[in-house]
Amino acid sequence: MLPDYNEHMFKSARVQLIGIIHTPFKEPKGCPIQPFFSSAEGTVEVFPEFRAGLEGIGRFSHIVLVYYFDRSDREDLVAAPYLERRKRGIFTIRSPHRPNHIGMSVVQLVSHRKGILKVKQVDMLDRTPLLDIKPYVPAFDARPKASSGWLTKRLAEVRGAKA
Amino acid sequence: MLPDYNEHMFKSARVQLIGIIHTPFKEPKGCPIQPFFSSAEGTVEVFPEFRAGLEGIGRFSHIVLVYYFDRSDREDLVAAPYLERRKRGIFTIRSPHRPNHIGMSVVQLVSHRKGILKVKQVDMLDRTPLLDIKPYVPAFDARPKASSGWLTKRLAEVRGAKA
Repeated sequence: MLPDYNEHMFKSARVQLIGIIHTPFKEPKGCPIQPFFSSAEGTVEVFPEFRAGLEGIGRFSHIVLVYYFDRSDREDLVAAPYLERRKRGIFTIRSPHRPNHIGMSVVQLVSHRKGILKVKQVDMLDRTPLLDIKPYVPAFDARPKASSGWLTKRLAEVRGAKA
Repeated sequence: MLPDYNEHMFKSARVQLIGIIHTPFKEPKGCPIQPFFSSAEGTVEVFPEFRAGLEGIGRFSHIVLVYYFDRSDREDLVAAPYLERRKRGIFTIRSPHRPNHIGMSVVQLVSHRKGILKVKQVDMLDRTPLLDIKPYVPAFDARPKASSGWLTKRLAEVRGAKA
C-alpha cells in the first residue's frame, strides 16, 4: 500500500527537548493517571531559545502539553490500565509504555511569565521532557459527548466515589 | 535549573513509524486546517506488527491521532496562521512548522477492521506518518468552556458564515 513512501527519510526523525515540566511527582507511585484525577500544580519551563513561541499564550485558559515518557523502558502492545486486571490494547489506554513514548495532557494555564508557565492538573512525572505546547481550542479539541470505551464503567465508579 | 537532568539520553530519542494516515489531501492547498473545518473521511493504516494494540478501539467514538509533519521543512517560532496576517507565537497556533514536527488531531472513529481504521474529520495530508493513537476520553480531554485565545474572534466569524 505504500509504493512511493520514503520510509527511510522519516525513520531518521528525532524529537528535541524544548523545555522541562516540573511537577510534585518524583516517581510513578502517587502520580495521577490523568489531569482528571489531579489537582496538582506544576511548572512548565520553556528554554530561552524557544520562548518567542509563547507570545499570546496567556489568552488561553488551557493548553495541550506534548511530552516524552523518558522513564519508560519498554513498549507494550497490550497492558493492564492502572488499577485494572484486564489487559487492553495500548491504543485504548494512556500508558507511557507505548511504541512511541509520546504523552499528551490537557492542563489549565494559570499564568505565564518569561518562559515559565504555571499550570494546574498536572499528571506527569517531575522533570518530564517537553516536546511541544499546543493551544487548547474547544472547537478543535472538545468532544464532550464522545464515548469512553472500556473507561465508561470505570469513570462512573470514580465519579460515584467522589460524590 | 537542571542540575541532574540527563539531557544527552533524551536527545537521542527517535520516533518510529507505526502506520500511515491516508486522506484526500495530496498537498497543503485545500487541506483543512483542523478537523473542525473538515468533513473528509480518511483511513488510518496501522502496520501489522502494532495491530495488537488496537484491541477494544472500536468502543471509542473518537480517537486522538498523533502524527509527524513530514512535509514541513522548517521550524518557526512565530508564524501567521492560515488566512491571518498577524504573526502569533507557534505555541498558540497549530502550524506544522514547529520545533518538533508533531501533530495531533481528534477525529471521529467510524469503523475498525484488521488494522484499518476509517475515520472522519481528517485534516492532515495524505500519507502522513502515524506515531500514536490515543483513546479520546471526554473526562480527560474535553474542556468545552476553555477560552480560545486569539482564535475566539476568528471562530465566531466562521460560525457566523456557516449559519
